[in-house]
Amino acid sequence: MLFQPHHDGSALYVDQLHPELGSTVRVRLRVPAGFGEVEKVWLRSVRDAEPHYDAADRLPFEANGGADLEEEGSADAGADQWWEAHLTVINPVQKYRWFVQSSGRSYWVNAQGVFRHDVPDASDFRLVAGPGAPAWAPQAVMYQIFVDRFARSSQADQHPTPEWAIACSWDDTPVIGRGPETPYQFYGGDLDGIREKLDHLVAVGATLVYLTPMFAARSNHRYDASAFAEVDPLLGGDDALVRLVEEIHARGLKVMGDLTTNHSGDMHEWFRASFRNPEAPESEMYYFGEGNEDYVAWLGVPSLPKFNWHSAHLRKRFVLDDDSMVARWLKPPFNLDGWRIDVGNMTGRHGRDDLNYEVAKIIRERVTELNSDALLLAESTSDASADFQGETWHGAMTYTNFTRPVWQWLSRGEWPELTQEQVEEAAGVNTATLLSVSGIPVPAVQTWPDFYGVPQKGPDRIEAEELLATHLNFIAGFPWSVRLCNMNAIDTHDTARAALAVIPGGQEVAAALQFSLPGIPLVFAGDEFGLEGFNGEESRTPMPWDDPSRIKRDLRGIYRALSETRRRHPVLADGGIRWLFAEGDALAFIRESDDESVLVMATRKALEEGLELPVKALCHPATDIETLLTIGEGAPTLSTSPSGVVRWKSSGPGVSLYRLPGVKAPA
Amino acid sequence: MLFQPHHDGSALYVDQLHPELGSTVRVRLRVPAGFGEVEKVWLRSVRDAEPHYDAADRLPFEANGGADLEEEGSADAGADQWWEAHLTVINPVQKYRWFVQSSGRSYWVNAQGVFRHDVPDASDFRLVAGPGAPAWAPQAVMYQIFVDRFARSSQADQHPTPEWAIACSWDDTPVIGRGPETPYQFYGGDLDGIREKLDHLVAVGATLVYLTPMFAARSNHRYDASAFAEVDPLLGGDDALVRLVEEIHARGLKVMGDLTTNHSGDMHEWFRASFRNPEAPESEMYYFGEGNEDYVAWLGVPSLPKFNWHSAHLRKRFVLDDDSMVARWLKPPFNLDGWRIDVGNMTGRHGRDDLNYEVAKIIRERVTELNSDALLLAESTSDASADFQGETWHGAMTYTNFTRPVWQWLSRGEWPELTQEQVEEAAGVNTATLLSVSGIPVPAVQTWPDFYGVPQKGPDRIEAEELLATHLNFIAGFPWSVRLCNMNAIDTHDTARAALAVIPGGQEVAAALQFSLPGIPLVFAGDEFGLEGFNGEESRTPMPWDDPSRIKRDLRGIYRALSETRRRHPVLADGGIRWLFAEGDALAFIRESDDESVLVMATRKALEEGLELPVKALCHPATDIETLLTIGEGAPTLSTSPSGVVRWKSSGPGVSLYRLPGVKAPA
Repeated sequence: MLFQPHHDGSALYVDQLHPELGSTVRVRLRVPAGFGEVEKVWLRSVRDAEPHYDAADRLPFEANGGADLEEEGSADAGADQWWEAHLTVINPVQKYRWFVQSSGRSYWVNAQGVFRHDVPDASDFRLVAGPGAPAWAPQAVMYQIFVDRFARSSQADQHPTPEWAIACSWDDTPVIGRGPETPYQFYGGDLDGIREKLDHLVAVGATLVYLTPMFAARSNHRYDASAFAEVDPLLGGDDALVRLVEEIHARGLKVMGDLTTNHSGDMHEWFRASFRNPEAPESEMYYFGEGNEDYVAWLGVPSLPKFNWHSAHLRKRFVLDDDSMVARWLKPPFNLDGWRIDVGNMTGRHGRDDLNYEVAKIIRERVTELNSDALLLAESTSDASADFQGETWHGAMTYTNFTRPVWQWLSRGEWPELTQEQVEEAAGVNTATLLSVSGIPVPAVQTWPDFYGVPQKGPDRIEAEELLATHLNFIAGFPWSVRLCNMNAIDTHDTARAALAVIPGGQEVAAALQFSLPGIPLVFAGDEFGLEGFNGEESRTPMPWDDPSRIKRDLRGIYRALSETRRRHPVLADGGIRWLFAEGDALAFIRESDDESVLVMATRKALEEGLELPVKALCHPATDIETLLTIGEGAPTLSTSPSGVVRWKSSGPGVSLYRLPGVKAPA
Repeated sequence: MLFQPHHDGSALYVDQLHPELGSTVRVRLRVPAGFGEVEKVWLRSVRDAEPHYDAADRLPFEANGGADLEEEGSADAGADQWWEAHLTVINPVQKYRWFVQSSGRSYWVNAQGVFRHDVPDASDFRLVAGPGAPAWAPQAVMYQIFVDRFARSSQADQHPTPEWAIACSWDDTPVIGRGPETPYQFYGGDLDGIREKLDHLVAVGATLVYLTPMFAARSNHRYDASAFAEVDPLLGGDDALVRLVEEIHARGLKVMGDLTTNHSGDMHEWFRASFRNPEAPESEMYYFGEGNEDYVAWLGVPSLPKFNWHSAHLRKRFVLDDDSMVARWLKPPFNLDGWRIDVGNMTGRHGRDDLNYEVAKIIRERVTELNSDALLLAESTSDASADFQGETWHGAMTYTNFTRPVWQWLSRGEWPELTQEQVEEAAGVNTATLLSVSGIPVPAVQTWPDFYGVPQKGPDRIEAEELLATHLNFIAGFPWSVRLCNMNAIDTHDTARAALAVIPGGQEVAAALQFSLPGIPLVFAGDEFGLEGFNGEESRTPMPWDDPSRIKRDLRGIYRALSETRRRHPVLADGGIRWLFAEGDALAFIRESDDESVLVMATRKALEEGLELPVKALCHPATDIETLLTIGEGAPTLSTSPSGVVRWKSSGPGVSLYRLPGVKAPA
């Protein structure tokens, strides 16, 4: 892995990140000196599903001071080779990869790595024609607020408890982890409460606030909207949103809402008008059976009737109209900076129907038309890349490429013994409760953290090489521009909290990876206090503003430092990524731009023997390494030897970030 | 690999191979005794893009005579475990895989194998709702005839040489390997010539004749149809086709035609009517520029104007009309048994347009409606599975999962040294000439076999484990029912001949794999005489009927034996497949049904030391092994030891097939 030929979609390798269809883009392959002699390089692209080859030229260039490397003592060190070819963007999602001939052997280079044997197109690099996400998006640090649980304003007491609700006391953990009453545990957080806590958000380094649904509904999560055109009066109504957005913007932060395109609540006026009323024009908006009595609902939950996107009526009212649900909140006076789309993966899909791509595209077009600086993310918790090809959602809220393998690598790996009946019973509902809470019966007691609906007791422990294999398997199908906008979460309102699943010190390691791998780091409110939770509902524990005894660990400084480091070193947001190693307890990669590089080394346990890497694998002289940030008490410490070796030791889990010079690439 | 939990789409594991949408299918996982204790098995399916888990039950069953195995001396041998779950077919292409918990570890089982870490959905098993290919298709042995080069009837001399043609003498190899004149080398084979040679086809074991285009055109390959509604008079016209099909059917064989859905020839009446004539209704059938002067052509070849499938006119005349091009030839008096679609991958794709799936689906529906016993295959030479999900073409003519890795494994690996200019020049045209011959300038001399458009000198040699990795990478995305209808070719009219690319004895090894792996074996006329060819054109050398000195090697007996073995042992057509090993020079797998099993062992060189396998990996008692067929002078010979070991030796490249009892599965 150390000296493999390298390409990614970053500016070091691609001269137009958002080309127009039909244009020709200069793309480059970098071959580290340690790889050996390369005789010939070809660019393979796929044009209208047919392979096409263009010869690459070797650029006459001695990069990254090969001379300096030799002074370090690596007698065989030399300069990177750079090869260049011209890629014509024939299709809106233009696939390509490299074919390298070296010493009588051939290699394929794609987004998953370097292969001796032929590889399918699925892991090709992808360049997307047309504009991408707003420029600010990859730099964002996202902070998620579950509105019922974040903060109560002074006015909150004036809102009466709604008839469907079970009033809870702020400092009590939600007691009903899962059950019919789960969605009714009501804490009464409101938008003005959030507004009063904006100092806290700034203090932990947030730059983008993501609010779970705030529309009128009949549950604490509000994914069962009874209206999409009205902020819930319990939250302070439309005016409270205007006040909140204004103050967020005044502080230079952005804010996104949460919109459900898969279903409405059963109390929504569209559903009320059409239920048992086949004559209603709204009938076509849902999947009704005869007499509009039976209907299709999200995972069978009756309160969440599923939209039928064949309906022109739905498309107009939800997306295309001037005052559509998508449009209304992005316009003044509300001015949201974008949407997170709920259940993005299932939207428009039902049995024979698969309108997902089409619906996502019209929503993307509408959002861009309204505000080209708005961000559009969508939930797709499992294998997401096929729906995120750059023409639809800007990025994915997905758990497969980052969250899950990181949990597994850092897993405690010790969970209480359970009977088979207990596991089965729990697993039977995991799927149903993974994305949202709903009225499905569940076991009252669970003593291990949910692992994203996978029927097992907590995350299975894996090694760093398996983490990397999983990460690459799932990430390779995303275009680079989308990858930079994927949400890297360690947990969310729909999952257990990582703090409960990982080893002591593991949350810090995970947090450092969130902020240093490509993607938008997502901090779920409460992460900064080390809060725990066995499942989504328990993770929605109210913030411990008034009861410091509920703070498990104060990690505010760590999140602030990570955010600050990311702000000062934008290479962490949009720089290229080269993996250096991933074995057992440790992994390392380097983010690179022409301006600077950041080397990241993470370990899950003490490395007493130390861990070595030839300095020339860095493609930078070892003399230029500067420690930038250390996270965790056992953070690795680095030393370099005269013989050209970088050596890490650590006394426990931790992550260290190092600054190196930028990559000297040919002009 | 030996004791991995196993599932494939065959009848051993799936109780309805062609279920209706919405139905529930019983699916099973088999765990060989050597795997270890399994605690729990889950079926994971994807419903409307959302994962769903169902618990599997262990069936109370002692399969395959565990007791017998123990008698063989393997003290730890035991019976297979079988687990069963119920899969509901929610989507037309229903994805699923297995999750196995064993000794505190978890495993995913998908169509690529068994994994410790999480895997994307791309390699999930797939079950397709609705009817599949005709039942005869997987059993077929396909024989490809390039009509200009197969045989001249006594009437052939009466056909005048057309004005575009360069008349060639039958026993001269095509001299112009590639160049503007390549398509004009005319040998004058005709349909009655084929009819006169049907004894030969029967003698080599063919059961399905595939004829390259026979419509009027202006080239020897006829992929530039000037009419789709008329058999070329040079071939004997419509009457000759009727005669030919009748005689083929009389012998119990089937016959398929070759239809180009991507383009017509520039002399086609639709193009003539619309070229420079924007008023013509046919204008919408092509991609014309202003004034209908410029137009889009296949890979830029002016004689092949590309169809625009947005055109309703095209859809009617080509597919939907009573006497459409698709329909006309499947109906009496012509009665073709199906189509091979040319350039299937590019059909309907152009820049922003991607109508491929839609077009393929309407053609499939039309073919099925006309004759539910007709077979519809399509060319997609590279990474094909995404277009072959069971709702479109029945199977693929593709080279990535079988042909290319088999060539690579059996590669001679020694090609003349070439200058970089020569390689570049050759590669520049490889892509263009991969699928068909056309008027693009090319180097006059080439001393190594084309490797499917990949710019390298002949196939790169790989090991058996790389062959298997490549095979699984590319095959995993196909539904099982489609996989059984993919064409397993070792060469075709568009490629070099394997005989030239592989080691001595390699063609026999490749042939045995064609007939024993899932898929329809394709014999390209001339394979049975060991003919060679550096590229597609040279591979189209006329058949050596009259000049036995042109027969390189007489392999007729081998093809006949393979076909006969396949006919007698249908498990080779539709049985499940379990890989036993793939390392370096040797590979082995077993095809299984409840009726019988066939063990296949192939080697590319002498195994003097021998190669061992624990008998319990077969899941059958070693006493029941019967040699069925040996191919190649060095075919492996097998012995079993009292200690429970199967041992092969061989004196050179070869393949041996062994018969074993069927799998005793629970009722």
